[in-house]
Amino acid sequence: MSLLVVGSLALDTIETPFGKAEEVLGGSSVYISVSASYFVEPVRLVGVVGSDFPKSAIEFLENKNIDLAGLQIIDTGKTFRWGGKYHYDLNVRDTLYTHLNVFEHFKPVIPESYKKSSYVCLGNIDPVLQQCVIEQIQNPRLVIGDTMNFWINGKRKELLKAIEMMDVLVLNDSEARLLSNEPNLIRAAKIIMKMGPRIVIIKKGEHGALLITEKTIFSAPAYPLENINDPTGAGDAFAGGFIGWIAKTDDLSDENLKRAVVYGSTLASFCVEKFSIERIKDLSHLEIKDRFLEFRALSHFEENNL
Amino acid sequence: MSLLVVGSLALDTIETPFGKAEEVLGGSSVYISVSASYFVEPVRLVGVVGSDFPKSAIEFLENKNIDLAGLQIIDTGKTFRWGGKYHYDLNVRDTLYTHLNVFEHFKPVIPESYKKSSYVCLGNIDPVLQQCVIEQIQNPRLVIGDTMNFWINGKRKELLKAIEMMDVLVLNDSEARLLSNEPNLIRAAKIIMKMGPRIVIIKKGEHGALLITEKTIFSAPAYPLENINDPTGAGDAFAGGFIGWIAKTDDLSDENLKRAVVYGSTLASFCVEKFSIERIKDLSHLEIKDRFLEFRALSHFEENNL
Repeated sequence: MSLLVVGSLALDTIETPFGKAEEVLGGSSVYISVSASYFVEPVRLVGVVGSDFPKSAIEFLENKNIDLAGLQIIDTGKTFRWGGKYHYDLNVRDTLYTHLNVFEHFKPVIPESYKKSSYVCLGNIDPVLQQCVIEQIQNPRLVIGDTMNFWINGKRKELLKAIEMMDVLVLNDSEARLLSNEPNLIRAAKIIMKMGPRIVIIKKGEHGALLITEKTIFSAPAYPLENINDPTGAGDAFAGGFIGWIAKTDDLSDENLKRAVVYGSTLASFCVEKFSIERIKDLSHLEIKDRFLEFRALSHFEENNL
Repeated sequence: MSLLVVGSLALDTIETPFGKAEEVLGGSSVYISVSASYFVEPVRLVGVVGSDFPKSAIEFLENKNIDLAGLQIIDTGKTFRWGGKYHYDLNVRDTLYTHLNVFEHFKPVIPESYKKSSYVCLGNIDPVLQQCVIEQIQNPRLVIGDTMNFWINGKRKELLKAIEMMDVLVLNDSEARLLSNEPNLIRAAKIIMKMGPRIVIIKKGEHGALLITEKTIFSAPAYPLENINDPTGAGDAFAGGFIGWIAKTDDLSDENLKRAVVYGSTLASFCVEKFSIERIKDLSHLEIKDRFLEFRALSHFEENNL
């Protein structure tokens, strides 16, 4: 089924204790689209870049069969840039700079050919823009959105309106606590479900992810990586793997949502192995399937009837 | 198979945002023994109390078929007391007081009848005492031990010697990081395995537990409790459920270790539902089995061959 992705495209400069990458391809819509491209073709992308956005990046996205009819290229502006530095404990990072550039005045315009997209994945952008996208789509089967502390604190009212229009909200544990004002994650998820989404996914980084629906709670483990080089984009790779699997299968049963969470975790686990999209840019289907099965081995146990 | 438990017996006073319990039964050996008593009978307990230790507590432990031949009752002293207060976020607690009392000069004396115990579970006590216990046991099949920041920081040398003598080390995530000086938990576990134990279990509280052996990594989820009233003793209930299952089945295969981790998680999940041992003091085998199966439902997913 068709999948529309809306979010940022960026040039990131990232420092971790294990290395540095300068002006590399990043942004939520890039991580989401590339991750989803292993399941759905083409992925429809809506975003904005400046005249300095590398031709090679455009070609790469096109080669992944990502439809760029919705990509605005502003000749007079520069691409969104973000710089961040991770600490020894990779859970902590400092933002060194955020230059919004052309992203500051981004207005997502959905091409006519995208308006009947079945699945819509909204990266972590201004909730007013998230609303504006959802309003342009005719009867989507499922809308999934991400958010962050910045919007929860700064644009709560607009965010609540956007969330109300979503079927799935994906957020991390600290964001779930902040949004719900409840430290217990299961209760937090249930409070968030009352805000609109019928499915809540809480990403817990190195502790895996929780899926909460009306009837199901599912806990996916994290992949036990010993070498994490760059956590940037992991949450977006998760969203891309999740929605990619859902769009491929067009099956919204709880059992299939669980599998989607594991495919999301699979893409996220690849993502953090290398800087930028280096590790997820050229995966084979066999690699993805093998890791999916490793997740199964990691969490399954059999009953022993004594 | 026979199981020996050595640790503290205490009278705890606990405050949480959800209530308060005064002078209630606590201590690592109590939580471990009671949890293990659902799998092994009798559990052999070695510990110390003062003359003020309630008769009702003695009767309760005897009714759980816990063998108290190794319990020293010091007529001239008072029982160990601990007071703690949990914050709104139950992951944070303040110790209000620690009165070691008779526990200060505790020397574990293993009764002759206990010296051939097959399984030995050492609560979080001074590593010198842990060594002293292990030395008294003749060819145990498996020794499992717990520790804490206090010993890692304060008696590292003695602790390393005790750990070297253990087959299984159970500790929480912050303790694993502290002991190994490595933030990545999988790497931390591998470093700890080089210290001696061939099995490392890292408890992650609300994020579940990790089992690491030479050939297996297993991730058990946490039970999605909405109402946690008192986290005290959860780690000991985990250890008791784990070693209880192992002693019952006498099966040290990785597959059975996984089940043991889930039985440990099961007992821990019951433990935190009420204050002290209130919730685990009178469980039925059906309740335990049902929750074990809920853990299974929580983490299992099936492959979908497309």
